Amino acid sequence: MQYQAPANDLRFLLFDVLGVDRLHELEKYADATPDLISAVIDEAGKLAAEVIQPTNQVGDRQGCQYDPETREVTTPDGFREAYTRFVEGGWTALDAPLQYGGQGLPHTLKFVVDEMVCSTNLSLGMYPGLTHGAITALYAHGSEELKDTYLEKLISGQWTGTMCLTEPQCGTDLGLIRTRATPNDDGSYAIEGTKIWITGGEHDLVDNIVHLVLAKLPGAPDTTKGISLFVVPKVLADSGDRNPVFCGGLEHKMGIKGSATCVMNFEGARGWLVGEPNDGMRAMFTMMNEARLMVGMQGLGLAEMAYQESLGFARERLQSRSPSGPRNPDGPADPIIVHPDVRRMLMRQKVLNEGMRALALFTGHKLDLSVAHGDGSVRESADDLVQLLTPVVKSFLTDEGFNNANTGLQVLGGSGFTTDWPLEQLVRDGRIARIYEGTNGIQAMDLVGRKLGLKGGQLVRTLFTEMTSYLKENPQAPHREELKGAIRSLESATVWIASNAPGDPEQAGAAASPYLRLMALTVIAYLWSRMAGVAQAQLEAGGGNRPLLEGKLVSARFYFEKLLPEIQWLQQDIESGKDSLMAFGDDHWSA
Amino acid sequence: MQYQAPANDLRFLLFDVLGVDRLHELEKYADATPDLISAVIDEAGKLAAEVIQPTNQVGDRQGCQYDPETREVTTPDGFREAYTRFVEGGWTALDAPLQYGGQGLPHTLKFVVDEMVCSTNLSLGMYPGLTHGAITALYAHGSEELKDTYLEKLISGQWTGTMCLTEPQCGTDLGLIRTRATPNDDGSYAIEGTKIWITGGEHDLVDNIVHLVLAKLPGAPDTTKGISLFVVPKVLADSGDRNPVFCGGLEHKMGIKGSATCVMNFEGARGWLVGEPNDGMRAMFTMMNEARLMVGMQGLGLAEMAYQESLGFARERLQSRSPSGPRNPDGPADPIIVHPDVRRMLMRQKVLNEGMRALALFTGHKLDLSVAHGDGSVRESADDLVQLLTPVVKSFLTDEGFNNANTGLQVLGGSGFTTDWPLEQLVRDGRIARIYEGTNGIQAMDLVGRKLGLKGGQLVRTLFTEMTSYLKENPQAPHREELKGAIRSLESATVWIASNAPGDPEQAGAAASPYLRLMALTVIAYLWSRMAGVAQAQLEAGGGNRPLLEGKLVSARFYFEKLLPEIQWLQQDIESGKDSLMAFGDDHWSA
Repeated sequence: MQYQAPANDLRFLLFDVLGVDRLHELEKYADATPDLISAVIDEAGKLAAEVIQPTNQVGDRQGCQYDPETREVTTPDGFREAYTRFVEGGWTALDAPLQYGGQGLPHTLKFVVDEMVCSTNLSLGMYPGLTHGAITALYAHGSEELKDTYLEKLISGQWTGTMCLTEPQCGTDLGLIRTRATPNDDGSYAIEGTKIWITGGEHDLVDNIVHLVLAKLPGAPDTTKGISLFVVPKVLADSGDRNPVFCGGLEHKMGIKGSATCVMNFEGARGWLVGEPNDGMRAMFTMMNEARLMVGMQGLGLAEMAYQESLGFARERLQSRSPSGPRNPDGPADPIIVHPDVRRMLMRQKVLNEGMRALALFTGHKLDLSVAHGDGSVRESADDLVQLLTPVVKSFLTDEGFNNANTGLQVLGGSGFTTDWPLEQLVRDGRIARIYEGTNGIQAMDLVGRKLGLKGGQLVRTLFTEMTSYLKENPQAPHREELKGAIRSLESATVWIASNAPGDPEQAGAAASPYLRLMALTVIAYLWSRMAGVAQAQLEAGGGNRPLLEGKLVSARFYFEKLLPEIQWLQQDIESGKDSLMAFGDDHWSA
Repeated sequence: MQYQAPANDLRFLLFDVLGVDRLHELEKYADATPDLISAVIDEAGKLAAEVIQPTNQVGDRQGCQYDPETREVTTPDGFREAYTRFVEGGWTALDAPLQYGGQGLPHTLKFVVDEMVCSTNLSLGMYPGLTHGAITALYAHGSEELKDTYLEKLISGQWTGTMCLTEPQCGTDLGLIRTRATPNDDGSYAIEGTKIWITGGEHDLVDNIVHLVLAKLPGAPDTTKGISLFVVPKVLADSGDRNPVFCGGLEHKMGIKGSATCVMNFEGARGWLVGEPNDGMRAMFTMMNEARLMVGMQGLGLAEMAYQESLGFARERLQSRSPSGPRNPDGPADPIIVHPDVRRMLMRQKVLNEGMRALALFTGHKLDLSVAHGDGSVRESADDLVQLLTPVVKSFLTDEGFNNANTGLQVLGGSGFTTDWPLEQLVRDGRIARIYEGTNGIQAMDLVGRKLGLKGGQLVRTLFTEMTSYLKENPQAPHREELKGAIRSLESATVWIASNAPGDPEQAGAAASPYLRLMALTVIAYLWSRMAGVAQAQLEAGGGNRPLLEGKLVSARFYFEKLLPEIQWLQQDIESGKDSLMAFGDDHWSA
């Protein structure tokens, strides 16, 4: 089944609900007119369906191949051609800075394109995805010389980039890093060490790969305060010499087999310091925050493709009769979409996908406002929300993206479990998104342990202001009472954490995961109320795409009736505290 | 990591909570003394760890191989040897009838062994698993001649069996079957047609395979009332001639790759009618009901293995420090099990696994009482519960087994996604259990659309009586109020369905999945209260395995505080009805 980009839903969200069509009124985004945004949606959708999607299954079947003789990696058939088309279309440059050849468009559009690429080939999307993080880190923290050397070719897609963080003994805890950077005479550093799980560490899509590497300077403290960031190219930019950084092998994985996940050996490779010594964690977070939002879009992208596949199957597969009488009396049976329980699965996918898309693009829009709005207070409150919601987008969209891919597989029954259909690959590919760029548990700790406390709690207050202002300004807001109830639950849980966690950090850890989920469901409830309100107004005005608008009203009702009530459970979980988690001693776990 | 059978938990459950140690007081199970049950637990655990587990990874890597020349299937290395050991140990005969060489032991013990086999190699376990279904169907419905011909060799494991139901155009809706049975002159039938997804349809573990095949007699009605059951051996028992039933190919699947999932072509193969003409669905349900309980144990088995792997990892992996200060001050970091969010994942696995084991063995014990108790009213109420809970065991244990395998994978982070660890295989293998033997949605429809209405609602009344009697007899029952609340929720939802579904069968379909889950959580709450009560009493008496008993109290608390509150959500979902599921017309799904 050919992918169909959710263009109507995107235009409804961006133009009618979120107001992204007004970004062009800001100087920085003057080019981002509604017509241009619409063209981006349509062109990206075409590229995804026609160029990227055909590479997805072969990527999974072939995987990447490592040659231990040459220490080189071959990507699956068609990846190089599809990547070239992606680059030629200028897609790697979409939101990159103008001064280095980027198009300077809003980040929201990058989110839109990310979703489509990940719907059609997550593995292929990883190569430009990681490059984008490298661009952002170099742009934010690199010297002018480094920027001049690397940015243009990374932005054009002529080179790709990586993030080299993890080592065998350290993933989450980067204080344990052992890779060393020793100063050379010429201002560069000799980088020595082994990094693992390096996405795109070695491949054949381009001629040069620019590694951003966390390492320790001589005498640096043995904690995260002793980490510095270096840029280490595969091929030296000046001389064209091969830098001694080599792939030592590939990981064998459950999914994303077309993405080269490399062991990288730095054998005294030359690197250059990015930013200040021992300040690498800050630069790393610049990459990481961006990557986290992108990973959220991966979850959504896979879930959207799963929805399309399972909807198509449910409409075609004839099996049994509707409980309320035959709907396809001339056929041997009715299509399974007539059954309430099949519809439950399809509605769950559709309503959560659209809610997750709204959450992500709401966050993307705030990101654009935070960098481009003329009013400092608007910029600040937008930035508050971006910081607060980044871990929420990453975790909720990957958890529920995976769940929705699984729900799509379930609609297909036994067919879904076979490799004749793409669902099982979507499930396998999607599993990693709950783990990389910080596991979802780490995201929850970032939210509860860090973000809630920033600026004396201002971030979450900004969120409450956003939602309560909406309710004040819209006395007829759809599903008003349920939304108020959700906000009250989130407030109650927030107060509980604020009262209990400061004296006992284990309480924050115990509350973290359900609290993140509670926040996600509440913000999505707010966005479903807004979407339903817009749909209602447009229907009353007699305009628009009626099936889409009517669908929004039904979907909102489904969300408030059948999904949102989870919040009561989450609130009870949070407020019951840590005791039942922490009581076990060593001898209780397998007694 | 070597599998460790949950022997202590099993003895606690079987002997101290459920009273399975008293089954030997019934004539039919006089051999099932506590000593014998204990020996079965220990021996099965050893077999699983030492003989079966070593075949699991190689089975996944190699898969089964099909030779289109010979139309034969080769199983992975080691399968034949492990199967032979399984047969030699008498495990295929455990609960089979004495008169055909079986050991006649309680079904509960079969459940116990099923869990262990599925923890260590689900694919291998499928071969004897399907054979068991064939034995049961032949024993219940076959003529004396058929039983004499086939049962002894199936029970000894010398031959294996299959269930041939599905065809390309029909899975759930067996009324659409096209396979034909034409009478031969000698009382046999010529079977012609194609069956798909036939587990163990062809393989090299044994010399003969006995297929139980659904087919239509000439002139039979075009519905499920026109289906008959036939036994079709690969090799004819009298002549030793090869019967023309051949494997046409293997499915390529997400998991259970060591299990041969075959396309089977019946090319005029000779078959013999089992039971009455056109009465095949009844015989099919005999196999199916048993198979559904076994599939539930598959979900639990995989989840148990995932728990053991993730617990081991969480104890070894050093990363970051406990939020309440270093626990491993001499090491570079603390083991990740110190973190509340990691404990949340481990507790979820442990507490749900133990709760699911309790639910399954409670049901298994009722199955034994329903066939062996001397008092007809005890037999009847036990049978009520078995019928009611069979779809609940199948669905809940496979849904949560899969979720728990995923939770285990998450504990490992990136390692869990690689094939260096067994978690990703457990997840892939476990995905099918939510689908086969009737998807979990079909199970929910069986519960709500069929079981609730049987005998004028008596089945669910028997369940309520079981739980409320417990509360009456145990005024000090642990977590009494929460359990009462859960029973009230289940009662409310039951009344809602009884009031709304009779006039509108779509309401039953809309309520089915959340209702099944609500029932599962409530019955498990009842069993956690019982387990905690027993543990409390034993601790007060100063006896037993203290870590296990203390663990039960903490686990029960975790269940009631952090898992059971989901029921409020489920109740709201059910009682909000079908409207938001059924409102979409054709043009709304992808507007």
